[in-house]
Amino acid sequence: MPRASVREQIVDAAFEQFHRHGYNACGVKLITDSAGVPKGSFYNHFESKEALALVVMDRYGETRHLEKLQTPKTAPLTRLRHHFDALAQDIVDFGYERGCVYGNFSTEAADHIPAIREGVKTAFDLWGNAIAAVIREAQDAGDVTNTQSPETLARFLLNSWEGAIVGERAAKDGSSFAAFFTVAFEVVLH
Amino acid sequence: MPRASVREQIVDAAFEQFHRHGYNACGVKLITDSAGVPKGSFYNHFESKEALALVVMDRYGETRHLEKLQTPKTAPLTRLRHHFDALAQDIVDFGYERGCVYGNFSTEAADHIPAIREGVKTAFDLWGNAIAAVIREAQDAGDVTNTQSPETLARFLLNSWEGAIVGERAAKDGSSFAAFFTVAFEVVLH
Repeated sequence: MPRASVREQIVDAAFEQFHRHGYNACGVKLITDSAGVPKGSFYNHFESKEALALVVMDRYGETRHLEKLQTPKTAPLTRLRHHFDALAQDIVDFGYERGCVYGNFSTEAADHIPAIREGVKTAFDLWGNAIAAVIREAQDAGDVTNTQSPETLARFLLNSWEGAIVGERAAKDGSSFAAFFTVAFEVVLH
Repeated sequence: MPRASVREQIVDAAFEQFHRHGYNACGVKLITDSAGVPKGSFYNHFESKEALALVVMDRYGETRHLEKLQTPKTAPLTRLRHHFDALAQDIVDFGYERGCVYGNFSTEAADHIPAIREGVKTAFDLWGNAIAAVIREAQDAGDVTNTQSPETLARFLLNSWEGAIVGERAAKDGSSFAAFFTVAFEVVLH
Protein backbone atom coordinates (compact mmCIF):
# COMPACT_ATOMS: atom_id res chain seq x y z
CA MET A 1 0.00 0.00 0.00
CA PRO A 2 1.50 3.35 -0.92
CA ARG A 3 2.40 5.65 1.96
CA ALA A 4 -0.06 8.51 2.42
CA SER A 5 1.26 11.75 0.97
CA VAL A 6 2.46 14.38 3.42
CA ARG A 7 -0.55 16.47 2.45
CA GLU A 8 -2.92 13.61 3.29
CA GLN A 9 -1.12 12.99 6.59
CA ILE A 10 -1.60 16.65 7.50
CA VAL A 11 -5.30 16.64 6.56
CA ASP A 12 -5.94 13.45 8.54
CA ALA A 13 -4.16 14.84 11.59
CA ALA A 14 -5.93 18.20 11.29
CA PHE A 15 -9.32 16.50 11.08
CA GLU A 16 -8.61 14.74 14.37
CA GLN A 17 -6.97 17.66 16.17
CA PHE A 18 -9.41 20.38 15.10
CA HIS A 19 -12.28 18.14 16.17
CA ARG A 20 -10.66 17.36 19.50
CA HIS A 21 -9.34 20.81 20.45
CA GLY A 22 -11.35 23.29 18.39
CA TYR A 23 -9.95 25.94 16.08
CA ASN A 24 -8.14 28.29 18.42
CA ALA A 25 -6.46 25.71 20.64
CA CYS A 26 -5.17 23.74 17.65
CA GLY A 27 -2.03 25.27 16.18
CA VAL A 28 -0.03 24.27 13.12
CA LYS A 29 2.63 22.64 15.31
CA LEU A 30 0.07 20.44 17.06
CA ILE A 31 -1.15 19.32 13.65
CA THR A 32 2.28 18.62 12.15
CA ASP A 33 3.46 16.88 15.35
CA SER A 34 0.33 14.74 15.28
CA ALA A 35 0.91 14.01 11.57
CA GLY A 36 4.54 13.11 12.25
CA VAL A 37 5.82 15.57 9.65
CA PRO A 38 8.18 18.57 10.06
CA LYS A 39 6.41 21.83 10.85
CA GLY A 40 8.21 23.40 7.89
CA SER A 41 6.47 21.04 5.47
CA PHE A 42 3.09 22.52 6.36
CA TYR A 43 3.44 25.61 4.20
CA ASN A 44 4.46 23.55 1.17
CA HIS A 45 0.90 22.24 1.17
CA PHE A 46 -1.29 24.88 2.80
CA GLU A 47 -1.21 28.64 2.77
CA SER A 48 -2.46 28.91 6.34
CA LYS A 49 -4.21 27.11 9.19
CA GLU A 50 -7.38 28.74 7.92
CA ALA A 51 -6.95 27.19 4.45
CA LEU A 52 -6.47 23.77 6.03
CA ALA A 53 -9.57 24.29 8.19
CA LEU A 54 -11.63 24.75 5.01
CA VAL A 55 -10.32 21.44 3.65
CA VAL A 56 -11.17 19.77 6.96
CA MET A 57 -14.71 21.16 6.80
CA ASP A 58 -15.19 19.60 3.35
CA ARG A 59 -13.83 16.30 4.62
CA TYR A 60 -16.09 16.52 7.67
CA GLY A 61 -19.10 17.06 5.43
CA GLU A 62 -18.48 13.66 3.83
CA THR A 63 -18.98 12.04 7.24
CA ARG A 64 -22.27 13.76 8.11
CA HIS A 65 -24.48 10.82 7.08
CA LEU A 66 -26.28 12.82 4.41
CA GLU A 67 -26.64 9.61 2.39
CA LYS A 68 -29.11 8.41 5.00
CA LEU A 69 -31.47 11.18 3.84
CA GLN A 70 -31.66 9.50 0.44
CA THR A 71 -31.92 5.80 1.21
CA PRO A 72 -34.23 4.30 -1.46
CA LYS A 73 -37.56 2.73 -0.51
CA THR A 74 -37.57 4.26 2.96
CA ALA A 75 -40.23 6.66 4.26
CA PRO A 76 -39.03 10.28 4.48
CA LEU A 77 -39.36 10.62 8.26
CA THR A 78 -37.61 7.29 8.77
CA ARG A 79 -34.69 8.56 6.69
CA LEU A 80 -34.56 11.76 8.71
CA ARG A 81 -34.63 9.78 11.91
CA HIS A 82 -31.79 7.52 10.71
CA HIS A 83 -29.78 10.60 9.76
CA PHE A 84 -30.01 12.15 13.23
CA ASP A 85 -29.59 8.75 14.90
CA ALA A 86 -26.27 8.34 13.11
CA LEU A 87 -25.15 11.86 14.05
CA ALA A 88 -26.09 11.18 17.67
CA GLN A 89 -24.23 7.86 17.71
CA ASP A 90 -21.04 9.58 16.54
CA ILE A 91 -21.22 11.99 19.48
CA VAL A 92 -22.09 9.26 21.99
CA ASP A 93 -19.10 7.25 20.71
CA PHE A 94 -16.87 10.21 21.66
CA GLY A 95 -18.35 10.32 25.18
CA TYR A 96 -20.35 13.47 24.29
CA GLU A 97 -17.09 15.29 23.58
CA ARG A 98 -15.73 17.01 20.44
CA GLY A 99 -19.09 18.27 19.21
CA CYS A 100 -19.74 19.21 15.58
CA VAL A 101 -16.89 20.74 13.58
CA TYR A 102 -19.32 23.18 11.92
CA GLY A 103 -20.78 24.33 15.22
CA ASN A 104 -17.36 24.54 16.82
CA PHE A 105 -15.92 26.62 14.00
CA SER A 106 -19.02 28.86 13.93
CA THR A 107 -18.69 29.49 17.65
CA GLU A 108 -14.94 29.93 17.78
CA ALA A 109 -13.90 31.44 14.50
CA ALA A 110 -16.82 32.84 12.46
CA ASP A 111 -16.66 36.26 14.15
CA HIS A 112 -13.01 36.76 13.29
CA ILE A 113 -12.31 34.81 10.09
CA PRO A 114 -14.59 35.57 7.12
CA ALA A 115 -13.59 32.44 5.12
CA ILE A 116 -14.47 30.17 8.03
CA ARG A 117 -17.78 31.92 8.51
CA GLU A 118 -18.56 31.54 4.80
CA GLY A 119 -17.53 27.86 4.91
CA VAL A 120 -19.82 27.13 7.85
CA LYS A 121 -22.68 29.06 6.26
CA THR A 122 -22.34 27.04 3.05
CA ALA A 123 -22.19 23.76 4.97
CA PHE A 124 -25.29 24.63 7.00
CA ASP A 125 -27.14 25.72 3.83
CA LEU A 126 -26.35 22.46 2.00
CA TRP A 127 -27.29 20.39 5.01
CA GLY A 128 -30.46 22.42 5.62
CA ASN A 129 -31.51 22.04 1.97
CA ALA A 130 -31.05 18.26 2.17
CA ILE A 131 -33.24 18.12 5.29
CA ALA A 132 -35.83 20.46 3.75
CA ALA A 133 -36.16 18.19 0.69
CA VAL A 134 -37.02 15.25 2.96
CA ILE A 135 -39.51 17.29 4.97
CA ARG A 136 -41.18 18.42 1.73
CA GLU A 137 -41.54 14.76 0.70
CA ALA A 138 -43.03 13.96 4.12
CA GLN A 139 -45.51 16.83 3.79
CA ASP A 140 -46.47 15.76 0.25
CA ALA A 141 -47.02 12.21 1.50
CA GLY A 142 -49.20 13.52 4.34
CA ASP A 143 -46.79 12.22 7.00
CA VAL A 144 -46.25 15.77 8.25
CA THR A 145 -49.36 17.95 8.57
CA ASN A 146 -47.44 20.93 9.98
CA THR A 147 -47.71 23.52 7.22
CA GLN A 148 -44.65 25.61 8.07
CA SER A 149 -42.29 25.75 5.11
CA PRO A 150 -39.80 22.89 4.76
CA GLU A 151 -36.99 25.48 4.74
CA THR A 152 -38.07 26.97 8.08
CA LEU A 153 -38.56 23.57 9.68
CA ALA A 154 -35.22 22.31 8.35
CA ARG A 155 -33.31 25.36 9.57
CA PHE A 156 -34.98 25.05 12.95
CA LEU A 157 -34.17 21.34 13.27
CA LEU A 158 -30.59 21.73 12.12
CA ASN A 159 -30.01 24.50 14.66
CA SER A 160 -31.81 22.54 17.37
CA TRP A 161 -29.49 19.64 16.69
CA GLU A 162 -26.44 21.90 17.01
CA GLY A 163 -27.86 23.22 20.28
CA ALA A 164 -28.52 19.73 21.60
CA ILE A 165 -24.82 19.05 21.11
CA VAL A 166 -23.97 22.20 23.10
CA GLY A 167 -26.25 20.93 25.88
CA GLU A 168 -24.72 17.44 25.89
CA ARG A 169 -21.17 18.71 26.13
CA ALA A 170 -22.16 20.24 29.46
CA ALA A 171 -24.49 17.53 30.79
CA LYS A 172 -23.18 14.37 29.09
CA ASP A 173 -26.26 12.45 30.17
CA GLY A 174 -28.26 12.05 26.96
CA SER A 175 -31.05 14.35 28.19
CA SER A 176 -30.59 16.93 25.43
CA PHE A 177 -30.51 14.32 22.68
CA ALA A 178 -33.60 12.66 24.17
CA ALA A 179 -35.43 16.01 24.25
CA PHE A 180 -34.40 16.65 20.64
CA PHE A 181 -35.71 13.33 19.33
CA THR A 182 -38.95 13.56 21.30
CA VAL A 183 -39.86 17.12 20.38
CA ALA A 184 -38.47 17.05 16.82
CA PHE A 185 -40.24 13.86 15.78
CA GLU A 186 -43.34 13.88 18.00
CA VAL A 187 -44.15 17.60 17.99
CA VAL A 188 -42.38 19.56 15.25
CA LEU A 189 -42.79 16.90 12.56
CA HIS A 190 -46.35 16.05 13.57
CA MET B 1 -17.43 58.12 42.80
CA PRO B 2 -14.95 55.61 44.20
CA ARG B 3 -12.61 53.99 41.71
CA ALA B 4 -13.57 50.38 40.91
CA SER B 5 -11.39 47.89 42.77
CA VAL B 6 -8.73 46.08 40.78
CA ARG B 7 -10.74 42.90 41.19
CA GLU B 8 -13.83 44.57 39.71
CA GLN B 9 -11.80 46.03 36.85
CA ILE B 10 -10.50 42.53 36.06
CA VAL B 11 -13.99 40.98 36.17
CA ASP B 12 -15.44 43.71 33.94
CA ALA B 13 -12.64 43.33 31.42
CA ALA B 14 -12.87 39.53 31.48
CA PHE B 15 -16.62 39.67 30.89
CA GLU B 16 -16.01 41.72 27.75
CA GLN B 17 -12.97 39.81 26.47
CA PHE B 18 -14.26 36.28 27.13
CA HIS B 19 -17.48 37.20 25.35
CA ARG B 20 -15.64 38.73 22.42
CA HIS B 21 -12.86 36.18 21.96
CA GLY B 22 -14.06 33.00 23.66
CA TYR B 23 -12.24 31.05 26.33
CA ASN B 24 -9.16 29.76 24.54
CA ALA B 25 -8.25 32.90 22.62
CA CYS B 26 -8.58 35.08 25.72
CA GLY B 27 -5.48 34.90 27.91
CA VAL B 28 -4.75 36.49 31.27
CA LYS B 29 -2.59 39.17 29.63
CA LEU B 30 -5.39 40.21 27.27
CA ILE B 31 -7.67 40.57 30.28
CA THR B 32 -5.25 42.55 32.44
CA ASP B 33 -4.23 44.77 29.49
CA SER B 34 -7.89 45.43 28.79
CA ALA B 35 -8.49 46.17 32.48
CA GLY B 36 -5.50 48.50 32.57
CA VAL B 37 -3.91 46.66 35.49
CA PRO B 38 -0.52 44.94 35.75
CA LYS B 39 -0.54 41.27 34.76
CA GLY B 40 1.06 40.46 38.11
CA SER B 41 -1.98 41.77 39.98
CA PHE B 42 -4.19 39.06 38.46
CA TYR B 43 -3.07 36.30 40.78
CA ASN B 44 -3.67 38.45 43.85
CA HIS B 45 -7.34 38.19 43.02
CA PHE B 46 -7.87 34.95 41.09
CA GLU B 47 -6.26 31.55 41.32
CA SER B 48 -6.47 30.97 37.59
CA LYS B 49 -8.16 32.01 34.34
CA GLU B 50 -10.57 29.15 34.98
CA ALA B 51 -11.58 30.60 38.38
CA LEU B 52 -12.20 33.98 36.77
CA ALA B 53 -14.28 32.34 34.03
CA LEU B 54 -16.60 30.93 36.70
CA VAL B 55 -17.09 34.41 38.16
CA VAL B 56 -17.82 35.74 34.67
CA MET B 57 -20.42 33.01 34.11
CA ASP B 58 -22.23 34.07 37.30
CA ARG B 59 -22.12 37.69 36.21
CA TYR B 60 -23.36 36.71 32.75
CA GLY B 61 -26.29 34.89 34.33
CA GLU B 62 -27.48 38.16 35.85
CA THR B 63 -27.84 39.59 32.34
CA ARG B 64 -29.87 36.70 30.86
CA HIS B 65 -33.24 38.44 31.27
CA LEU B 66 -34.60 35.74 33.57
CA GLU B 67 -36.65 38.43 35.32
CA LYS B 68 -38.78 38.64 32.16
CA LEU B 69 -39.98 35.09 32.92
CA GLN B 70 -41.55 36.38 36.12
CA THR B 71 -43.15 39.68 35.15
CA PRO B 72 -46.38 39.99 37.18
CA LYS B 73 -49.78 40.10 35.46
CA THR B 74 -48.42 38.86 32.13
CA ALA B 75 -49.51 35.64 30.42
CA PRO B 76 -46.92 32.85 30.63
CA LEU B 77 -46.27 32.59 26.89
CA THR B 78 -45.96 36.37 26.61
CA ARG B 79 -43.30 36.31 29.32
CA LEU B 80 -41.46 33.53 27.54
CA ARG B 81 -41.63 35.46 24.29
CA HIS B 82 -40.29 38.63 25.96
CA HIS B 83 -37.46 36.60 27.47
CA PHE B 84 -36.28 35.25 24.11
CA ASP B 85 -36.94 38.60 22.41
CA ALA B 86 -34.55 40.26 24.86
CA LEU B 87 -31.92 37.55 24.35
CA ALA B 88 -32.23 37.95 20.58
CA GLN B 89 -31.94 41.74 20.79
CA ASP B 90 -28.66 41.43 22.71
CA ILE B 91 -27.21 39.29 19.91
CA VAL B 92 -28.54 41.55 17.14
CA ASP B 93 -26.99 44.53 18.95
CA PHE B 94 -23.61 42.80 18.64
CA GLY B 95 -24.12 42.27 14.90
CA TYR B 96 -24.78 38.53 15.46
CA GLU B 97 -21.31 38.18 16.97
CA ARG B 98 -20.08 37.03 20.39
CA GLY B 99 -22.79 34.45 20.94
CA CYS B 100 -23.78 33.14 24.38
CA VAL B 101 -21.05 32.82 27.01
CA TYR B 102 -22.55 29.53 28.22
CA GLY B 103 -22.67 28.04 24.74
CA ASN B 104 -19.20 29.33 23.94
CA PHE B 105 -17.68 27.88 27.10
CA SER B 106 -19.54 24.58 26.61
CA THR B 107 -18.19 24.31 23.06
CA GLU B 108 -14.66 25.45 23.76
CA ALA B 109 -13.81 24.35 27.27
CA ALA B 110 -16.26 21.78 28.69
CA ASP B 111 -14.37 18.82 27.25
CA HIS B 112 -11.11 19.80 28.89
CA ILE B 113 -11.98 21.73 32.09
CA PRO B 114 -14.33 19.96 34.51
CA ALA B 115 -15.15 23.10 36.54
CA ILE B 116 -16.24 24.97 33.39
CA ARG B 117 -18.34 22.04 32.28
CA GLU B 118 -20.00 21.88 35.71
CA GLY B 119 -20.57 25.66 35.66
CA VAL B 120 -22.27 25.53 32.26
CA LYS B 121 -24.35 22.52 33.28
CA THR B 122 -25.57 24.35 36.40
CA ALA B 123 -26.37 27.49 34.41
CA PHE B 124 -28.32 25.51 31.80
CA ASP B 125 -30.19 23.62 34.54
CA LEU B 126 -31.22 26.81 36.35
CA TRP B 127 -32.28 28.47 33.10
CA GLY B 128 -34.11 25.35 31.93
CA ASN B 129 -35.97 25.09 35.24
CA ALA B 130 -37.08 28.73 34.96
CA ILE B 131 -38.40 28.11 31.45
CA ALA B 132 -40.06 24.85 32.50
CA ALA B 133 -41.94 26.63 35.30
CA VAL B 134 -43.43 29.07 32.78
CA ILE B 135 -44.36 26.28 30.37
CA ARG B 136 -46.08 24.42 33.23
CA GLU B 137 -48.11 27.55 33.97
CA ALA B 138 -49.04 27.84 30.29
CA GLN B 139 -50.12 24.18 30.20
CA ASP B 140 -52.17 24.61 33.40
CA ALA B 141 -53.85 27.67 31.89
CA GLY B 142 -54.64 25.73 28.72
CA ASP B 143 -52.46 28.03 26.61
CA VAL B 144 -50.27 25.07 25.65
CA THR B 145 -52.04 21.83 24.79
CA ASN B 146 -48.85 19.97 23.94
CA THR B 147 -48.60 17.36 26.69
CA GLN B 148 -44.86 16.75 26.61
CA SER B 149 -43.34 17.44 30.02
CA PRO B 150 -42.37 21.06 30.76
CA GLU B 151 -38.83 19.86 31.50
CA THR B 152 -38.45 18.20 28.09
CA LEU B 153 -39.94 21.18 26.26
CA ALA B 154 -37.78 23.63 28.22
CA ARG B 155 -34.59 21.68 27.59
CA PHE B 156 -35.44 21.45 23.91
CA LEU B 157 -36.19 25.18 23.60
CA LEU B 158 -33.09 26.23 25.53
CA ASN B 159 -30.90 24.06 23.29
CA SER B 160 -32.72 25.23 20.17
CA TRP B 161 -31.99 28.80 21.19
CA GLU B 162 -28.30 28.01 21.64
CA GLY B 163 -28.30 26.38 18.22
CA ALA B 164 -30.05 29.35 16.63
CA ILE B 165 -27.14 31.47 17.86
CA VAL B 166 -24.67 29.02 16.27
CA GLY B 167 -26.61 29.38 13.00
CA GLU B 168 -26.68 33.20 13.15
CA ARG B 169 -22.96 33.49 13.76
CA ALA B 170 -22.49 31.86 10.35
CA ALA B 171 -25.39 33.46 8.43
CA LYS B 172 -25.88 36.79 10.24
CA ASP B 173 -29.19 37.32 8.42
CA GLY B 174 -31.80 36.71 11.09
CA SER B 175 -33.07 33.53 9.41
CA SER B 176 -32.20 31.24 12.31
CA PHE B 177 -33.79 33.50 14.89
CA ALA B 178 -36.89 33.83 12.69
CA ALA B 179 -37.12 30.03 12.38
CA PHE B 180 -36.72 29.71 16.15
CA PHE B 181 -39.52 32.13 16.99
CA THR B 182 -41.88 30.69 14.38
CA VAL B 183 -41.42 27.03 15.26
CA ALA B 184 -40.99 27.49 19.01
CA PHE B 185 -44.10 29.63 19.50
CA GLU B 186 -46.35 28.42 16.68
CA VAL B 187 -45.53 24.72 16.67
CA VAL B 188 -43.76 23.53 19.84
CA LEU B 189 -45.79 25.65 22.25
CA HIS B 190 -49.08 25.06 20.45
